[in-house]
Order: sequence, then structure tokens, then C-alpha cells
Amino acid sequence: MAEPEHSDSAWVREAEIAVVGIGLMGGSLAAALRGANERPRRGRRVVGIARRAATLPLAAPLMDEATLDIRAVAGADAVVLAAPPRAIIRLLPQIAALMRPGALLTDLGSTKSAIVEVMSTLRDDILVVGGHPMCGKEAGGLAAADPHLYDNAPFVLCPVPGRAATAVARAAGLARVLGARPHILDAARHDRLVAAISHVPYTTAVALVAAAEALAASDGDTLWELAAGGFRDTTRVAAGELDMWIDILLTNQPAVLDHLDRLDGALQQLRQAIAAGDIALLRGVLEAAQTRRRGLFR
Amino acid sequence: MAEPEHSDSAWVREAEIAVVGIGLMGGSLAAALRGANERPRRGRRVVGIARRAATLPLAAPLMDEATLDIRAVAGADAVVLAAPPRAIIRLLPQIAALMRPGALLTDLGSTKSAIVEVMSTLRDDILVVGGHPMCGKEAGGLAAADPHLYDNAPFVLCPVPGRAATAVARAAGLARVLGARPHILDAARHDRLVAAISHVPYTTAVALVAAAEALAASDGDTLWELAAGGFRDTTRVAAGELDMWIDILLTNQPAVLDHLDRLDGALQQLRQAIAAGDIALLRGVLEAAQTRRRGLFR
Repeated sequence: MAEPEHSDSAWVREAEIAVVGIGLMGGSLAAALRGANERPRRGRRVVGIARRAATLPLAAPLMDEATLDIRAVAGADAVVLAAPPRAIIRLLPQIAALMRPGALLTDLGSTKSAIVEVMSTLRDDILVVGGHPMCGKEAGGLAAADPHLYDNAPFVLCPVPGRAATAVARAAGLARVLGARPHILDAARHDRLVAAISHVPYTTAVALVAAAEALAASDGDTLWELAAGGFRDTTRVAAGELDMWIDILLTNQPAVLDHLDRLDGALQQLRQAIAAGDIALLRGVLEAAQTRRRGLFR
Repeated sequence: MAEPEHSDSAWVREAEIAVVGIGLMGGSLAAALRGANERPRRGRRVVGIARRAATLPLAAPLMDEATLDIRAVAGADAVVLAAPPRAIIRLLPQIAALMRPGALLTDLGSTKSAIVEVMSTLRDDILVVGGHPMCGKEAGGLAAADPHLYDNAPFVLCPVPGRAATAVARAAGLARVLGARPHILDAARHDRLVAAISHVPYTTAVALVAAAEALAASDGDTLWELAAGGFRDTTRVAAGELDMWIDILLTNQPAVLDHLDRLDGALQQLRQAIAAGDIALLRGVLEAAQTRRRGLFR
């Protein structure tokens, strides 16, 4: 992963930043810039744009202004779209049309190729770059917002081909201000990698619950009474937000299908080793995974 | 799951109990009976039988005697085999031959059909019953032993067909003394259920790591740098003990293969919904899994 050669964070201090979508990710970003808990203010003014009126009272303490009016992006030096990928794709042309020339438009979407492709079609007097911070929480929504959510997280930036590098430098500066570590990655490569480390693991977690459900349908509910730590961990992500996951799978379809093939290959190899009682093969596959997994997250 | 009709725990207080294999599970059981931390002593005498001399010094504070000599089971009122399933299967005839008439022989193995089948062939003047406590820890080994490990855990007991019910009542009493909740389950059914909630989730975790490894082989190590919470949770069990998992998969082969078929069916359905962009089907499958998963582990 390439760290950005240039990173510009000086602009953030004097900037008005609009966050469109103030759930967990957008709300945490707003709170980190506005200052909250023991964290000082980093941006001059932070405006949050919500979809529902019910969100506004909860948003008030975390940002300078919370509104339902999308036209609030018109005064911003930077606009951050914090919504599920297909919502971002729908919003991009509408938001771009309202923005002031020279302003930065970026996003926090979990897939990048489809979003970057739409960004490349937007008016060329605004700065565009795709973004994906690799952080989150089990609990979603603004109620779970945390000004420290971005601390030390990898923050992937995907340049939009043919557009000014200033966009990447400014977004990298913003990521640094948030406490994250910016990394530049081609959108297609980003999507291949997150298919492997996030989207197919989610799909598999759903399949594990569905397969257990299929057994319980004939066997009864004892299965759920016995489920312990291993099932809890391997299926945790299956409890995630539906709208986000549907958008992710549909906007990263080719990479997800490719990686489902790789998973199928690995499952077939394991199946054959188990069916044949081939201890040497089984030990080889299990040991390679054990070694790799024990070396991660240290 | 049936709770046992009869449970006899009075015998434990006056009993000498031998634990064969003093890793995490056996060591924790010994410590719970012997008394440790703020937990009072529950058994008259607890003897641990280790495989390696290096274990003995670590074992000393957790039990009344620690030895390498398998013949120490001769004086016990109950013998608990705490080893991987194939090791239990090898040990059963050897241990049974050494035991005193009327004593209880049980185990803590993760699969039960193969073990219960061997138990049914043992001399009929000892009491035999299969056992599987549904608890554990990421860290294995005696160093991680915890006298509270069994607190409130489901403890499955699998009767041995044709053998005295006294065995089940005494093992249920022992489980209660350990703080666990005994449940009686037919061995074949136990094995089907744990294939779904433990063995196939483990196999899938290994396959997720192997599939990511296959992508990293051509794409480079950036994948591992980006891996975040979702990958950490879905693959955690892949770091588990090899010898235990090899034994589990080989002694529960038919149920694991059956459930791998169910998983494959669920994955195929998800693949088709993603490939077709069938939002209604996708939402239906994801939502059912989300609802089920959110209702578990509360």
C-alpha cells in the first residue's frame, strides 16, 4: 500500500466541512472534526446533513449544524458522503451540482470502483477522490458515534483517473487530521482486497447461519441453545446493517463472485481431505491457516 | 435438550477423581474440583495425569497430585479423559482395564459417536457415559486453566446404549458441581449439531484464510495490512489447536460432510442472488440471517 507522497492538512483548520449521512461513520467523522470528549476542534465548522428529522436532536451536540437540507453543501470547502454505496452513487451528481468550485468531494463507501467511475463523470472544477476508512463497530447508527473511531485506522484513498492530484493530497490530510493512516490504492485493487477480507467473510457468515437454520428446521431449536463462542465469532458480521451489505455486494459483484470461487476451491480441498481421511493434506491446510492467522492482529 | 431426570452429585465430595490430559479443559476441571482462587474444594482428591514431564510443575498448584503414570487411574472413583477425540479413543480400553469396578469413566471430547461406540465395548462393571462441555478459550494449554471455565456452560452428556443410567446421573452431578448445566443428547444428534455450530464454522474460517492467501499470492501482502474486525472475528477459530481440530474433523466426518453440503447450498443461493442482482432474494436471505443472529447470544 502506498502512503501518499503529498498530504495537505493545513486547509482543514479553516474549512467548513459537510457530512452527508450522519450514522456511525459520518457522525464519528463530524464529532472528530468538531471536537468532543477530550478531543479538540479541528475544523472551523462542521455541518451534518441527515435523512430523517428524528436524527437531528441526537446530532446537535456532535456538530455545528445539523439539517435535512441537502443544499447546505453549497457553503462547504469539503463534502464527505457517508452512506451505503448505492446511495452515494445516487447522491454524487446531485451534490456535485450544488458545490462551490474548487471544493473537495469524497466519500466513505465500502466499495470503490463504481463510485470512482461516477466521480470521473462529475464537473471538473471540483476535486474528487474515493475514500474508505477501515474501521467500524458492531453497533451502527449515530448513537454509537465515537470521535476516536478513526484513530490509527487504515484510510484507503482511491484516485479518480484523469482528475487533479490535489484531491488526494487534501483527502490524505483530512484522514491524518481524523487520526487515521491514509493509503493510496487503485479502486479495482481495493475492491478485490475487501472482497477477500470483508465481503466474502460476511457472505460466509450469512451462509453459516442459513445452513444452521436449514438443519434446525428438521432437528429443532437445540442447536441454538448449544451455539457457543466459535459460532458467535464466525457469524457476528451477519448481524450487520442490511442496506449497507446489499449495496456492498451489488456494487462489488465481480470481485465478490471471483473470491467466492477461491473460497469454494479452498472448501473443496478441505472436503476432499476430510472425506479421504488424508491426515497429511488436512494438517498441511489447517497448519498454513493457523500460522497465518496467529501472525495477524498482534 | 433434555435435562437429566436424575442427577447425583453427593458422591463427588468423597471421591478421588483422575483427569487424564491436563490442558485447558482437564486443568480447569481439576482446579474447579480441587478448589482455587475463591472457589472451595469440591472433591476429596484430584489426580492429574500428564503426557509430558514439563507439565508437572505447572499442574502442582491446581491438583492434589500430578503424575505421568497412567496407572494412577486405578485408585479413582471417576476418570475423566480430557484429550483430543482420537487420543480418547486410543486411551479408553487401556484406562478401562486399570479401573476399579463400579467407577465412572467419562470424557470431554468434542465429538461423541465414535467415542460412545468404543465405550459400549468396554467391560460392563464400570460406568460409562460420553461428555462434552460447551466451553473453552482462545488460549489453550494448562497455563490458561481457569476454575470458573465451566460456570453456566451447557454440558452435554451422551448415554452409552445398553449401559446403566447410573453413569448419566453421576456425570450430571459432576457437571453440576463444576457449575455447568447438564443436558442429555443422543451421540449422533450431538455430532450433527456441533458440526453445524462448530466444526463447519471452523472449516470455513480455515477456507477464508486459505482463499485470502491464494489472492495474496498474486496480489501481495497489502491484503493482510487492510484486514480489519470482520476478518479477525470470522477467522479467529482458524488459530486453534491443530491436533484437536484434526481429530474432530476425522471423528465427525459424516456429519461435517453433510453440513458442508448445507453450507454449499446456502453459498450457491447467495452467489446466484448476487450474480443476478436479485435484490429481493438477497434481502430475504440476508434478513433471515440477520434476524436469527441478532436473537442469539443475548
